[in-house]
Amino acid sequence: MKVEAVDAFYLAMPDIEDIGDGSQDMLLIRVRADGLTGWGECEASPLVSIASLVCPMSHGACRPVLDSVIGQPLNEPADIHRIVTQVRARSADLLQADHALSGVEIALWDLLGRKEHAPIHELLGFARPFPKTAYASVLFGETAQETLNKAKQIRGEGFNAAKFGWGSFGRGSVREDEQQVEAAREGLGDDATLLIDAGTVWHDDVEAAIARLDVLKECGVAWLEEPFVSSALRAYRDLAALASPVLLAGGEGSHNHLMAENMIDHAGLGVVQIDAGRVGGIGDSFLVARYADGKGVQFVNHTFTSHLALSASLQGYAGLETHALAEYPVESRPLARDLTDGRITVDEGGHLTVPTAPGLGVTPRIDVIQQYMRDVEIKVSGKLLYRTPDPLG
Amino acid sequence: MKVEAVDAFYLAMPDIEDIGDGSQDMLLIRVRADGLTGWGECEASPLVSIASLVCPMSHGACRPVLDSVIGQPLNEPADIHRIVTQVRARSADLLQADHALSGVEIALWDLLGRKEHAPIHELLGFARPFPKTAYASVLFGETAQETLNKAKQIRGEGFNAAKFGWGSFGRGSVREDEQQVEAAREGLGDDATLLIDAGTVWHDDVEAAIARLDVLKECGVAWLEEPFVSSALRAYRDLAALASPVLLAGGEGSHNHLMAENMIDHAGLGVVQIDAGRVGGIGDSFLVARYADGKGVQFVNHTFTSHLALSASLQGYAGLETHALAEYPVESRPLARDLTDGRITVDEGGHLTVPTAPGLGVTPRIDVIQQYMRDVEIKVSGKLLYRTPDPLG
Repeated sequence: MKVEAVDAFYLAMPDIEDIGDGSQDMLLIRVRADGLTGWGECEASPLVSIASLVCPMSHGACRPVLDSVIGQPLNEPADIHRIVTQVRARSADLLQADHALSGVEIALWDLLGRKEHAPIHELLGFARPFPKTAYASVLFGETAQETLNKAKQIRGEGFNAAKFGWGSFGRGSVREDEQQVEAAREGLGDDATLLIDAGTVWHDDVEAAIARLDVLKECGVAWLEEPFVSSALRAYRDLAALASPVLLAGGEGSHNHLMAENMIDHAGLGVVQIDAGRVGGIGDSFLVARYADGKGVQFVNHTFTSHLALSASLQGYAGLETHALAEYPVESRPLARDLTDGRITVDEGGHLTVPTAPGLGVTPRIDVIQQYMRDVEIKVSGKLLYRTPDPLG
Repeated sequence: MKVEAVDAFYLAMPDIEDIGDGSQDMLLIRVRADGLTGWGECEASPLVSIASLVCPMSHGACRPVLDSVIGQPLNEPADIHRIVTQVRARSADLLQADHALSGVEIALWDLLGRKEHAPIHELLGFARPFPKTAYASVLFGETAQETLNKAKQIRGEGFNAAKFGWGSFGRGSVREDEQQVEAAREGLGDDATLLIDAGTVWHDDVEAAIARLDVLKECGVAWLEEPFVSSALRAYRDLAALASPVLLAGGEGSHNHLMAENMIDHAGLGVVQIDAGRVGGIGDSFLVARYADGKGVQFVNHTFTSHLALSASLQGYAGLETHALAEYPVESRPLARDLTDGRITVDEGGHLTVPTAPGLGVTPRIDVIQQYMRDVEIKVSGKLLYRTPDPLG
């Protein structure tokens, strides 16, 4: 079969809050071939990603993403790899391309899985998926008391691991950060895994991060996530040398597998975190997982949005038994929470199981798409390049 | 003063050819403050970059670029650094942001230079600019004969250095590539500097690059540029170990100074090439130049478009005497060739001098903008987010 159509839907909550909650909007991608439909999600700015799908060509290595997708053969996993390689060569100078490509690639896998009646992890060659320990992923409370309450609630819901991040962490005094981390530990209890996410707040300022190491060690924090931006390899490496036993985690900013591998090689990472909706798709996340496994670095998904995105980010390491943690969003907005028919649930022991139904194993609901859809229209020189398609069409 | 307005103009040739010629379109940025105007150019997809300037916020770290620019104080270089830092923090998850920011940042420098009646290199702290040996930068001919003719013509025009790149190089047989390189050397003569640009054609395939090393050595090629994509640090390093005396050059794909510094640290580069219109602007290119200088790596501009872009990319290393080469576009399309009042010329000895007039020292012509302007209109939920502004407005 051949890729016949790729459609993009910009979905958003009615009001977007100025906080680190990435579940407030999404770009959903629909791919069609031979009567079948596949879905994917970009963890990216919807409007900018749409523009990168349809923009006019600038030159031979700066073309719209869809130029390298529409009409392409799609019969086996190698075809997806070929399409990805082609997008990257022909859109090499189009920076946003990797983010838009990610959703397209996921949708191609979903479609192929539905055609083959196989889950994507099976198409990747995994004999079986292993259950993962879900860690509840939340923002810090506005106060330490609020963080304490969140932690208690998470523990009460059966989670044995939790991550707190963003909010004011790293922006105020060291003492305020200490109180936040102490509150998280107190609320979770001593026997749960506690993770802290600094959300790149210190850019590449190693001293600012060092000032918070003591409390992380005292509170038994398993990893400190994204103290710095992904490119700050030197800063990561310098901090890693001082942070033990706290591991450094990062990688979600990678927009191809090589960038993540560079972090594994040169940033002293203990944990690499990959979002299939940003890194170029499931194929790239699978490559990073394999590379991390070979280097003794823990692989974990990055997911803060829907269960479609969650399934996509789990596929690439579903069959790696020793990479046993998984990020699990627990305070998503209604858009992300309600998007899919089928959800990935956490059992009483705090574990999740990667779906075994064909493709991603979950499907977007058309009524939810209709409810949150934003109409977009892009014209260049009077020519309509993009208008939001009909979700029923 | 404060940044009052930022306008973006999408300019393009009437017909865009599917070749590696980046001079076929551009995104021009105009910044206004206190009755003054500054101009910058993004080496990037115009439509996608415009979208990143004005897109709706997705969350706190995925905002439109202009949110962090409009209304900001602009009185000294530190203000530009602060604006850049703010864009990167608040648009961290917006991949295209660095490309759009680049043109904005350049325009802020241009405006500040005009206010201070000083060239940008002076604002950067350079005591004086040093002349650079211009290398004529062209695409390979379609045949070896055509490349031979181009090389002869370049030499006849007084250039003592030239770079040939893209076209079919690396895509066909090793013998065909050998013939191309031999033709370039023959046309230039033995005493000129010959550089070869592979345009990332081998992605990260070291063997494909190794197969071309012999001819590069035999023809005295000074550097092989971009055998691989910027992220392929391992491939670069492995090739560098075999390439001597041919240096490896790369870095134009870097979209912040840290990425380029990582290439210097881990890719075995002999030459780092930075486009101010992509790396985040003149400030980031200055940081890379300083870093390269400290590491014994040669810094050189990347420029294939207008003399506005050329001036911007020269500023960051204008005062570094030992970094003495400069890329000089010689077969630009009329849009890029005619854009500016004032051009950077090459003297009889094959040298260029960085402008010493205020700001960038060259200014876009309004009639050229009018001639090549493409009208763009972007609407979300019925609201007009962007419409091409009046260049006379």
